[in-house]
Amino acid sequence: MDPEETTVCPAEQPPRISAILETALYVADLDRAERFYRDVLALRQIGKDPDRHVFFRLGSGVLLLFRADRTRQAGTLPSHGADGEIHVCFLVSPADYEAWKRHIRGHEIAIQREVTWPQGRSFFFRDPDGNLLELADADIWPR
Amino acid sequence: MDPEETTVCPAEQPPRISAILETALYVADLDRAERFYRDVLALRQIGKDPDRHVFFRLGSGVLLLFRADRTRQAGTLPSHGADGEIHVCFLVSPADYEAWKRHIRGHEIAIQREVTWPQGRSFFFRDPDGNLLELADADIWPR
Repeated sequence: MDPEETTVCPAEQPPRISAILETALYVADLDRAERFYRDVLALRQIGKDPDRHVFFRLGSGVLLLFRADRTRQAGTLPSHGADGEIHVCFLVSPADYEAWKRHIRGHEIAIQREVTWPQGRSFFFRDPDGNLLELADADIWPR
Repeated sequence: MDPEETTVCPAEQPPRISAILETALYVADLDRAERFYRDVLALRQIGKDPDRHVFFRLGSGVLLLFRADRTRQAGTLPSHGADGEIHVCFLVSPADYEAWKRHIRGHEIAIQREVTWPQGRSFFFRDPDGNLLELADADIWPR
């Protein structure tokens, strides 16, 4: 074994990352996004800076909505921000799935597609900024 | 009570969304992103289409990495895609936090900032596409 190789080796395989804590989307109008995520998706709001962000709690995770024109300015935290239509999928109970479809349609939001997966069902729609949201009635992924 | 008002009411308040299932990032080079998330962050890979995406499992959630130039083309699923530097925060055990910092630095990745929150600690760094990643040693948000 070459001792020099050992020296320059990167650190050993790290322990596992256990979960995603924060998922971010970027929006142009925070008040409009707040109304949508709070009133239509019924998320529990946990923070707001009217010029920069609005935050929501979902189970063990957090959904962060930012104005990219603000977060791209370096501040206390390193800069970030994106333009476009980001995808995020939320989990609902199978017993609530049809009620969610009625609820989304009741707000005159188009359901763009519905898919039956081997492990469950999901449907796709858009937030007011065009981000592509999905509601799934099961964990449709390999464990 | 005005019966007409009742008629135009949107659907009743829906049941809660229970969790975020899928979090998406967009990358230019899937092979490079795969090496970073699989080999540096040690995530468990659960899918790959060499032209379109690579997927990873994290606890009860899934991290989806897409090439936006492909997902913007409407296909089986509605189009999505973003340009820029998206933020995502991952959770690690407090016992593993310092080992993670050493591990990231061992791969010659700069730690751009470290923050002590009321409920824990976190540090920030970038993936090869500039997405702003954070590793936190606790759920630093109100429940």
